Amino acid sequence: MFIPFKKMHGAGNDFIVIKEEDIPDNVELQQLARSCCHRNFGIGADGLLVVAASQAADVKMIYYNSDGSIANMCGNGIRCFSKFVFDEGLANKENFKVETLAGIYRVDVKIANHKVEFVKVNMGRMYFKPEEIPVVHDGPHFIKQKIHGGGKVFEATTVLMGVPHTVIFLDKLSDDDVRNFGPIIENMEIFPHKTNVNFVEVVSRGLVHVKTWERGAGFTLACGTGVTSVCGVAHYLDLVDSEVEVIIDGGRLQVIIKDDGTMDMEGPAEDICEGKYYYK
Amino acid sequence: MFIPFKKMHGAGNDFIVIKEEDIPDNVELQQLARSCCHRNFGIGADGLLVVAASQAADVKMIYYNSDGSIANMCGNGIRCFSKFVFDEGLANKENFKVETLAGIYRVDVKIANHKVEFVKVNMGRMYFKPEEIPVVHDGPHFIKQKIHGGGKVFEATTVLMGVPHTVIFLDKLSDDDVRNFGPIIENMEIFPHKTNVNFVEVVSRGLVHVKTWERGAGFTLACGTGVTSVCGVAHYLDLVDSEVEVIIDGGRLQVIIKDDGTMDMEGPAEDICEGKYYYK
Repeated sequence: MFIPFKKMHGAGNDFIVIKEEDIPDNVELQQLARSCCHRNFGIGADGLLVVAASQAADVKMIYYNSDGSIANMCGNGIRCFSKFVFDEGLANKENFKVETLAGIYRVDVKIANHKVEFVKVNMGRMYFKPEEIPVVHDGPHFIKQKIHGGGKVFEATTVLMGVPHTVIFLDKLSDDDVRNFGPIIENMEIFPHKTNVNFVEVVSRGLVHVKTWERGAGFTLACGTGVTSVCGVAHYLDLVDSEVEVIIDGGRLQVIIKDDGTMDMEGPAEDICEGKYYYK
Repeated sequence: MFIPFKKMHGAGNDFIVIKEEDIPDNVELQQLARSCCHRNFGIGADGLLVVAASQAADVKMIYYNSDGSIANMCGNGIRCFSKFVFDEGLANKENFKVETLAGIYRVDVKIANHKVEFVKVNMGRMYFKPEEIPVVHDGPHFIKQKIHGGGKVFEATTVLMGVPHTVIFLDKLSDDDVRNFGPIIENMEIFPHKTNVNFVEVVSRGLVHVKTWERGAGFTLACGTGVTSVCGVAHYLDLVDSEVEVIIDGGRLQVIIKDDGTMDMEGPAEDICEGKYYYK
């Protein structure tokens, strides 16, 4: 049996994109995600994006991490997803709505040579209520809280940006810190649904560096909801202005914090390959 | 520009296979290998196999590691390569010869449902001469030699099996040892062309466990020339009989040490996906 697929990436965060109509009824999506995302035995990707019909928006995005866990939303994923939808002729306008488990998102695609090059996504607003994130905490929000993990103490802020995001500001970023402390913080008992973990170095009021440990996916080259959360939190703490350039291992993204409290994230989306996946 | 490709794996050692005739003249193979093998920005694989015409055999295999370095030979690669050649109708017999930079190899493909499932490769013989391997050493061979690396002392045997292979027997295998000491030994000054590093646990005279650190590719799930070298060295040191089952992280392989001193390696080869690679 084979399933048509496209592999894409957004700033190095890579995805297999498959249309729901191309997936046979007897195939379980969770198992398909684990299989096709495996780096050696499968095509290899950080996650699987399934393109489905929507009653509430123009199209519906179903997202699975490479470990088979479902995620409400994926910021780089929705850029790739939107490029796929436009390039495949599934949307006939440059501005459309995408339904996700985290709600409906407005996207704008930017065209060059009849194909999408960049995508802007209105990522909505951050939510601070501990029970919504969720984080086990007495108090109205979880801001600059001391957490202990791996023999170190971090000052953490956790918000909901489609998925739970913990933001930790450091003087200097290192891959080792991300790999060592990311999985420990991800799995702390105070986060009942686990958490993504973003380590941030503020370079100036218009520029930050971010490295993210993703819940269910590990160290990835870019995390769109993470980058957006980081800018939202940094702006809330008055560390940056309302337009922020973000450097991540996989490239660059832009975030704009708007007057209505919502945030726009803009970045690239690229095709890598497409073809038939031999699913066993 | 797009290039037709197939992604395959042999016991978890994964490859992009491309026909030379499908590669435009202005594309440099080394750069293509680095690009298409990248796990996030490319399709993702341990190496690139190019299928080319041969004057000396039925077909020619050109092999690049994911870092763009060329390798003389790849044991799991030649199984995938042979399956590709047969399944694509480029060879009309189940036994054919493949030219590589390490010489000509005889392969036997085993068919099920009109497709190749297993491939047996006559891997030839090991070479012990230090100057051929190469290893800087005074003496007729480099067997059970003490080497110092990363604060530890190992007893190492190095042979040439198409590519240089160092074999180290341990009481117990661990991924940490492979990751920590593999790259140190790979790059030791006594190995002018570097070396692959195989860590081995002998379970019985018919069964060994192997973990390989591959020169230019790092920790892979399986290394065919490594597994063959390990069995050859273990047999030479009278640790195993002439038929050996090898457990690697990506599956199982069989090695038979023949009376003429050559060795057969047999194992699986599988298609993962195929399609168009958008090369930039």
